Amino acid sequence: MPEAHFLASRPLYRAADLRPLLSPRSIAVVGASARKGSFGERTVHHLSGFTGRLHLVNARYDRLGERPCHPSLTALPEVPDLVVAATPLEAAEAVLEECIALGAGALVLYAAGFAETGRAERVELQARLVARARQGGVRLVGPNCLGVVDYASGAGASFMTVPRPARPLSGPAIGIVSQSGNLGFALAQATEAGVAIGRILTCGNSADVDVADYVAALAEDPACSAIALLFEGMADPRRLLEAAELAWANDKPLVVHKLATGASGAEAALSHTGSLAGSDAAYRAAFARSGAVMAEQYEGLLELAGFLAKAPAPRAAGVAVVSTSGGSAIMAADRAEVRGIAMPQPGEAARAVLEARIPEFGSARNPCDVTAQVLTDPESLRACAGALLADPAFGTLILPNGYAYDTATPRFAMLNELAAEHGKPACVVWTSQYLEGPGAREAEAQPHVALFRSMDRCMAALGAWQARGALRAAGAPDRRRAAPEGAAVAVAALLDRASGPVLTEREAKAVLAAYGVPVVAETLVNDAEAAVAAAEAAGYPVVLKVESPDLPHKTEAGVIRLNLSNAAAVRAAHAEVMANAARAAPGARLNGVLVQPMVPAGIEMVVGAVRDPLFGPTVLVGLGGILVELLRDSAVALAPVGHAEARAMLARLKGAKLLEGFRNLPAVDLDTLAGIVQRVSELAADHADRIAEIDVNPVICNGTRQLAVDALIALRPPETAPRG
Amino acid sequence: MPEAHFLASRPLYRAADLRPLLSPRSIAVVGASARKGSFGERTVHHLSGFTGRLHLVNARYDRLGERPCHPSLTALPEVPDLVVAATPLEAAEAVLEECIALGAGALVLYAAGFAETGRAERVELQARLVARARQGGVRLVGPNCLGVVDYASGAGASFMTVPRPARPLSGPAIGIVSQSGNLGFALAQATEAGVAIGRILTCGNSADVDVADYVAALAEDPACSAIALLFEGMADPRRLLEAAELAWANDKPLVVHKLATGASGAEAALSHTGSLAGSDAAYRAAFARSGAVMAEQYEGLLELAGFLAKAPAPRAAGVAVVSTSGGSAIMAADRAEVRGIAMPQPGEAARAVLEARIPEFGSARNPCDVTAQVLTDPESLRACAGALLADPAFGTLILPNGYAYDTATPRFAMLNELAAEHGKPACVVWTSQYLEGPGAREAEAQPHVALFRSMDRCMAALGAWQARGALRAAGAPDRRRAAPEGAAVAVAALLDRASGPVLTEREAKAVLAAYGVPVVAETLVNDAEAAVAAAEAAGYPVVLKVESPDLPHKTEAGVIRLNLSNAAAVRAAHAEVMANAARAAPGARLNGVLVQPMVPAGIEMVVGAVRDPLFGPTVLVGLGGILVELLRDSAVALAPVGHAEARAMLARLKGAKLLEGFRNLPAVDLDTLAGIVQRVSELAADHADRIAEIDVNPVICNGTRQLAVDALIALRPPETAPRG
Repeated sequence: MPEAHFLASRPLYRAADLRPLLSPRSIAVVGASARKGSFGERTVHHLSGFTGRLHLVNARYDRLGERPCHPSLTALPEVPDLVVAATPLEAAEAVLEECIALGAGALVLYAAGFAETGRAERVELQARLVARARQGGVRLVGPNCLGVVDYASGAGASFMTVPRPARPLSGPAIGIVSQSGNLGFALAQATEAGVAIGRILTCGNSADVDVADYVAALAEDPACSAIALLFEGMADPRRLLEAAELAWANDKPLVVHKLATGASGAEAALSHTGSLAGSDAAYRAAFARSGAVMAEQYEGLLELAGFLAKAPAPRAAGVAVVSTSGGSAIMAADRAEVRGIAMPQPGEAARAVLEARIPEFGSARNPCDVTAQVLTDPESLRACAGALLADPAFGTLILPNGYAYDTATPRFAMLNELAAEHGKPACVVWTSQYLEGPGAREAEAQPHVALFRSMDRCMAALGAWQARGALRAAGAPDRRRAAPEGAAVAVAALLDRASGPVLTEREAKAVLAAYGVPVVAETLVNDAEAAVAAAEAAGYPVVLKVESPDLPHKTEAGVIRLNLSNAAAVRAAHAEVMANAARAAPGARLNGVLVQPMVPAGIEMVVGAVRDPLFGPTVLVGLGGILVELLRDSAVALAPVGHAEARAMLARLKGAKLLEGFRNLPAVDLDTLAGIVQRVSELAADHADRIAEIDVNPVICNGTRQLAVDALIALRPPETAPRG
Repeated sequence: MPEAHFLASRPLYRAADLRPLLSPRSIAVVGASARKGSFGERTVHHLSGFTGRLHLVNARYDRLGERPCHPSLTALPEVPDLVVAATPLEAAEAVLEECIALGAGALVLYAAGFAETGRAERVELQARLVARARQGGVRLVGPNCLGVVDYASGAGASFMTVPRPARPLSGPAIGIVSQSGNLGFALAQATEAGVAIGRILTCGNSADVDVADYVAALAEDPACSAIALLFEGMADPRRLLEAAELAWANDKPLVVHKLATGASGAEAALSHTGSLAGSDAAYRAAFARSGAVMAEQYEGLLELAGFLAKAPAPRAAGVAVVSTSGGSAIMAADRAEVRGIAMPQPGEAARAVLEARIPEFGSARNPCDVTAQVLTDPESLRACAGALLADPAFGTLILPNGYAYDTATPRFAMLNELAAEHGKPACVVWTSQYLEGPGAREAEAQPHVALFRSMDRCMAALGAWQARGALRAAGAPDRRRAAPEGAAVAVAALLDRASGPVLTEREAKAVLAAYGVPVVAETLVNDAEAAVAAAEAAGYPVVLKVESPDLPHKTEAGVIRLNLSNAAAVRAAHAEVMANAARAAPGARLNGVLVQPMVPAGIEMVVGAVRDPLFGPTVLVGLGGILVELLRDSAVALAPVGHAEARAMLARLKGAKLLEGFRNLPAVDLDTLAGIVQRVSELAADHADRIAEIDVNPVICNGTRQLAVDALIALRPPETAPRG
């Protein structure tokens, strides 16, 4: 579905561009050393199993152990694909120049002390290196990095201890991409416990090669079964989204755990919408649009990636549980409910098998408690598990594994066979708190069985899998426009005539109306008697609001009066709001007073848009009033969105149930509301260079009758708008 | 703080009552066997390290291995403290009778097939066993159980494989109490990875001894450092709460993970309040009142118990993080923010140490990134960690541990020394996904260092620790009554005169007023002209509501009209509501129409009470309208509550920020609102035998001016009220 087509600041390096780095045929270590514990010594040690040709460079040695050692890169018998510089900062420029002169393909720079110090001369030094590397066609990794590891070729181009796999790779494996080198290697240590990891890719300061390039290269790497990305943030994340789209196009699962989700990135915003659609929300929206899957917790990142690597597309939404204890069965039902996972009852065929096999103190339902008796009877367990996997109601089967026994491990191979036979994944939830106890590696090793160490994370992963499957099945999103022909041109003219950096309500509603957003009717009047006349014409009750470019927050300023039911009330209210306006903002330009019919009570929504500094325009929808401001119950997407995407945003609201009707208010017509969201998103996207923020609040919804009764549009300061 | 003083259905067994079970000096195994894999053979094997006297009973053998085997319990050389029956169901009664005749202290019955089958004769058989055991003074564990394990004495009275500790016990250790035998042993396997587990206590069908007895016994067990309870539910949970209070009184941390949190237990309820304060909410409220700590996730249960076992009372709210990588530091800040944990900056003294030790590419702040350079320099790490632990702003220090190395393990002992020196716990967050990689056991083994495998769970645990500390520091809650003297008597009379099972609004408000809850004034009128007169007297605008015992839900019935500003509007509304009443409930008894002044807009709250089938009256407070109905943002407590407890309920609301003021509405005076909550709780508790439910909705709050403008009170059907 991703079709964002972001324009990135520099084209991504693709698999072919990074071939010398990721699949080197020869590696040279500059600064190879015999000094125990030195970066050079450690690197050579980690490359001892490299299946390609390894060259050592250090003018101080003729030999290191069994290998010859050369005085310089130039002296090597061949031009190396990859050069690893285990040298101090001072040597970096010289090594790079040698690489360029020779035509080496890539350079890994361990040394720290560059731009990360914040010192001007070090920042400049790093910039010089990048410029030269790009000119010279050398891909630069680092500086200040831990390097890269390729398990397939044994290329441990890192001074960091390289985790030793519990078993040899037997096919495609997870590629780990991490901005944090330390956490990248900490993640990759899962391989010592049996997780199939194919590569560890770190990038230190990301001066040249960065996580976006790595994701793009892995998207095209047949040895990669899924990409696990540990991500903090970057100056131009659109490159990462482009890489994510590439992964989507190649059906390569990309799972992201994002760090730095806290308040630090939040920006001041004029209206309420801005404070909600902050940078983390924009990141999530952007990843969602690119088809990436988010891992909520760090400790679930590899589990989720591993599951998606093993799972074919879901064939049914139901989840079956074959448990060995009542407690685990209850736990499965609890967490399924929390995560919105369906656990239907088995069909007749499966039920018959369960009833025949499960003793009287068990439970032949879903979740099914086969009891320890069946668990220790391989034939019965196979029959029950097979019957559930064969049932068309179920897309997967969960086996909560209790006590970790050596003797229980054959059941994982049995489960794997059944899963393969039925073309469905199976899940083992490891409830033993002996986390790497006997059997865990064997379960992990099965190509059709995913291992989870949390029932909650298992259910969350199944939800993510199902959502990804639905998205792939839906195909490319329909982004046909909802706004009328010519809306963009008409609005450009309206914006040119705006009375100030924040449009008045009247101006904002004219802009929205041009895009087909239904807005409440209004009359602008200049005195109390004209207000009464307008009220009589509109029909009581009415609303009065001061219209001024200098009073964007009308409620707080006391310049709005609701529910006026007769002429006397209108006259009194007119005097009141004019007085309050003078008090709230002395000298404010007052265009007059708006008279509007009072819109009957309905479900109040807010629709807005804000320009994210990284991703450009985003659109937001939420439940109005208290909910949006206080509980941040809103859905955010990159603008523009199509109709189905707008509907999906509505479904994501925590308070979505409210839209089905509340007390005596009718249900909100979702297509109508989605239409408003879509139109606002198109408005924001069409005028991204002019509009900073849109806040349509509230939209009062009664069935298909939906009206924007107030609106705020803030323009970007002219100095930040792009020129030319 | 717990002072609930529940009346339990049977007195708890205390440590002294369960001594023969928990600390047996002699154990007899009936059904001891040589048949490999049989329950008897396995039990004898698991008792091979028992430090007491072990006797084998089986008429078919003279000897089993090295040990003599006896034909019956009667033939043993002594009366055993504990008898374990590895015999089929059919033998249960005979074994029990032999135990009674001899005067054995306790009997563990493995056999399944009793009440859990649901078959009447088996249910009766189980009931017979329990009655006889109690008569005979034999504590019965099971049937259908896995038995009990005491690591201190090597008493593995279980046929289930007994987890082998990674290290010998060196002091008090966690006691595991589990309703699910399977999950109890799965949890206890943590001991193979180094967690100090002292006992595993399971109870199968809980026919006699149950989890409440176990908790009570562990509360008095000096060998128990903390209790980890895996709980599903029970018929009379008040016994468990009594046990929890005992644990609180002895300052023994009790950590509970509750299963069966789903919808299955929900009950139909008359008003909205009832649907919120369902059984799971009542359980949480009851555990909170008893001082128990909830573990949100199963996989965090032992971590939390282990941390509380090691942590003294918190000495400061701030948390310091000494990290070896920027990524871990960010992760800590992210999760602290989510969990509401403060991470202040270090004071001058600590900052000076950090600045002297941390290189230019690190960060001498909190979270502090000491870089890998300091991590591998023990003296610098000790200086930084020591400076942070010495800083009075910090109550604990977190060390996120990256790559798991053997050589890094000495740092855990160093951390332990510093923690001990400063009287503060330290936490290691294990970010390596080699979950039991080198160093994990060593970290776990430190008595002042707690090991977490999730930053999020670590921060959640710190929050629970701080809350528990605050509760202990506050001492016993002040539950002095807020209701006026004589309120209970007055209300008893009002309830006697109630017009039906659901009180009318007028009746309900009279009841609330008697308890001192401020209610809106009202006049009951019988015709339109009287309504106008009442409105003139009250002052416009007014509200009209039909008063009828047959129309509890007035809004839905259309018998309520708001904001009437003149006589004509009152007349029209009167006609309208009378017509709607006739339509909504033909034949309804109509007492007339209530005329009330329209209460100005304010923050709307709901206060309610519902009688939980297990725990009796509970009180609820939430934000009114959409929030309480849709988002279930409410706080529940067992009634009655004291003033401080009511204030704490308000602080727990997700939307608590709203109470500080919203748009142009003033802040809610929290003491006034807490007073209303307290009075409603006293009303519910005083009349628990009469009142099923109270729903005061809304209470409109403007500063200290808070008024209940509508109320519903439902009485219990007479047949369910206790007699005599």
